[in-house]
Amino acid sequence: MQAQEAGTDDEASWLPSLITATPEEGFELAVKMSRTSVKTIQPDVEVLKKLRPAYAHDPDSLIAATHVVAVNFRTIAEANNYWRD
Amino acid sequence: MQAQEAGTDDEASWLPSLITATPEEGFELAVKMSRTSVKTIQPDVEVLKKLRPAYAHDPDSLIAATHVVAVNFRTIAEANNYWRD
Amino acid sequence: MQAQEAGTDDEASWLPSLITATPEEGFELAVKMSRTSVKTIQPDVEVLKKLRPAYAHDPDSLIAATHVVAVNFRTIAEANNYWRD
Amino acid sequence: MQAQEAGTDDEASWLPSLITATPEEGFELAVKMSRTSVKTIQPDVEVLKKLRPAYAHDPDSLIAATHVVAVNFRTIAEANNYWRD
Amino acid sequence: MQAQEAGTDDEASWLPSLITATPEEGFELAVKMSRTSVKTIQPDVEVLKKLRPAYAHDPDSLIAATHVVAVNFRTIAEANNYWRD
Amino acid sequence: MQAQEAGTDDEASWLPSLITATPEEGFELAVKMSRTSVKTIQPDVEVLKKLRPAYAHDPDSLIAATHVVAVNFRTIAEANNYWRD
Repeated sequence: MQAQEAGTDDEASWLPSLITATPEEGFELAVKMSRTSVKTIQPDVEVLKKLRPAYAHDPDSLIAATHVVAVNFRTIAEANNYWRD
Repeated sequence: MQAQEAGTDDEASWLPSLITATPEEGFELAVKMSRTSVKTIQPDVEVLKKLRPAYAHDPDSLIAATHVVAVNFRTIAEANNYWRD
Repeated sequence: MQAQEAGTDDEASWLPSLITATPEEGFELAVKMSRTSVKTIQPDVEVLKKLRPAYAHDPDSLIAATHVVAVNFRTIAEANNYWRD
Repeated sequence: MQAQEAGTDDEASWLPSLITATPEEGFELAVKMSRTSVKTIQPDVEVLKKLRPAYAHDPDSLIAATHVVAVNFRTIAEANNYWRD
Repeated sequence: MQAQEAGTDDEASWLPSLITATPEEGFELAVKMSRTSVKTIQPDVEVLKKLRPAYAHDPDSLIAATHVVAVNFRTIAEANNYWRD
Repeated sequence: MQAQEAGTDDEASWLPSLITATPEEGFELAVKMSRTSVKTIQPDVEVLKKLRPAYAHDPDSLIAATHVVAVNFRTIAEANNYWRD
């Protein structure tokens, strides 16, 4: 987790490192990355709030969202050497 | 499976490790990951119950869900060195 | 194919190993994995039978299904070191 | 290309090997794999013929098909060590 | 970051290197790559401006866009050895 | 770029090599691969011309196209060892 300890410059970063202590924390980071990605592309919080109900009640939207989480989790899992050690 | 034996801290984790004994168990973990991912994004169990019939009877939804399982399985297969040993 | 020879415990497994003798057998396994994945998510055989006609006559559904096969084939190809040896 | 030279057993295989002489041949194999995959899932040639016009005139279907080719090409490119040597 | 220092030829490049100092910068590059890709395929800025409102208010479009970012991020993360060092 | 120098046999190839001098050239090759893939699946240029307006004005089609570019870029980036050297 050296990136997180790298200094004050990174303290405000939402993604200081891809390294996590456990697979579950890696999964949570994958979800966070996916959510931050949506906010980066559509930064208007009011718009996102309005989209939320439709999105969260549409099974295909939910599956598509889990797909993005799965891709991000793969990246994080590799970064952590699959938490094998 | 060292992560699962790592101690009491992990006992409540739904994803203590990516390591499984067999490919089939790895596949089951991939399905579990995909399902947990949906619940993480839409935690309202009542909503999920209502979505289930539409989702489970729509071939495109089913295929999309198997796609997510396939991505998660790839990550798990790599973690297990493809169960070659 | 050591996993398949690992013993009686695996005899009932639908996925005892990712190792196949040839690329074509690996492709067949990728198709099998994709089909089993659908059945795992929607275990009701009667429902699946009803979905089959619509699915098999919709080009987009067919392409989506081949996409899942392609992802599974990649995992299997890696497991087999691309059958290079 | 040892797999293709492996003997008479493989002569009837549509996928005797992932090894190709050039990237372009690898791309052609990726297209062939994608097409064979459709035929494996929907073996009825008459049905496929009827689907062809709709599919080939729908930009989204075409893009989805190129996506599958891209995934298969990645597998083949890895198998060939990216034709670096 | 040698590619960025490679000389005046690269000074006008929008993608002089995949190497970034931090994961967050890598994520920003992934977003930039995704946006540049849209502009490459549809270079007409006026058309893109008109598409923007529909796109940015459609949850499925937003999720699809984050998927592309996730794929690009994976490439960038690998290029940077996951910022492990 | 040895494949491109391999001789007159490859001079007519649209994909003589995956090796490029810079990441930006690699990105351009990824776009070219994606476009050639569409033409391979739908070789009728007149049909493609008619599809172009609808496709280029549909945000979801554009995003889907950038997804294919992203997958092809990943393959090319790996082939070039991410242009690290």
